[in-house]
Amino acid sequence: MIETPFRQPAGTPIQPSRAGGARGVARVGARLAAGLKDLEGFERVWLLYWLHEAPPGQLRVRPFLDRMERGIFATRAPARPCPIGMSAVRLLRIEGNRLEFEGAEMIDGTPLLDIKPYVPEFDSHPESRAGWFDGSRSRRKRADHRFEREA
Amino acid sequence: MIETPFRQPAGTPIQPSRAGGARGVARVGARLAAGLKDLEGFERVWLLYWLHEAPPGQLRVRPFLDRMERGIFATRAPARPCPIGMSAVRLLRIEGNRLEFEGAEMIDGTPLLDIKPYVPEFDSHPESRAGWFDGSRSRRKRADHRFEREA
Repeated sequence: MIETPFRQPAGTPIQPSRAGGARGVARVGARLAAGLKDLEGFERVWLLYWLHEAPPGQLRVRPFLDRMERGIFATRAPARPCPIGMSAVRLLRIEGNRLEFEGAEMIDGTPLLDIKPYVPEFDSHPESRAGWFDGSRSRRKRADHRFEREA
Repeated sequence: MIETPFRQPAGTPIQPSRAGGARGVARVGARLAAGLKDLEGFERVWLLYWLHEAPPGQLRVRPFLDRMERGIFATRAPARPCPIGMSAVRLLRIEGNRLEFEGAEMIDGTPLLDIKPYVPEFDSHPESRAGWFDGSRSRRKRADHRFEREA
């Protein structure tokens, strides 16, 4: 389970890099706390989580940072066929089964699936070409209503 | 479904960065092919997949690149409580519902969960401290038998 200050999609940051200092807590089951050992030395961790409030998967979406419709797999939008989210967040502190982090961009109550260490050798490709993102000039930081479920 | 040249865990690369030029094919369902549109402009993609041959989750493991036992969440080992793997692979070509890539490190027949574009602004943190990985001098490239299921 992930605790954050965000109660609904609209107004929630779209990525850790645009979350300002928003903080959250990722909590593993009490019996899994021993699995967090040795994580303190890492500056960032990946959180994988279930996008439990996402609307049904779509094949084409208009992402937050573009004006065009794009294929869903070419976006990070939540309305995916398999709604798993992932975020590289900054690790602040671990205490028991609680992991405090900076870069919260999920809504409060999001189910946590996995935590992995961020390893630059595996994960960092600063020069990687990024298709339509490279052309985006949007400075948007927060989600709007577009990926909310209908009531 | 992901097709690769690797039939069992032992001998499979441990990460794309250590996979040499090993190639694979990620295939989405035929009706999801339209979701791959606009992905061609990206140099890398994230593949998320189910580690279907991983042994039951453990809390402490001896990872491939270390001699010490570590908490499972401080490693990328497959024997995780929720066995989801993720890899930043180099995109070679998309044709219909097939995505060819370089950096294969999963075994043949691995179930594909999601494809996401690799976006440096969100995903790249080249200077991120990486705990015990930073101290590892292991040059190991391939898995051995340690995370195979018992027969």
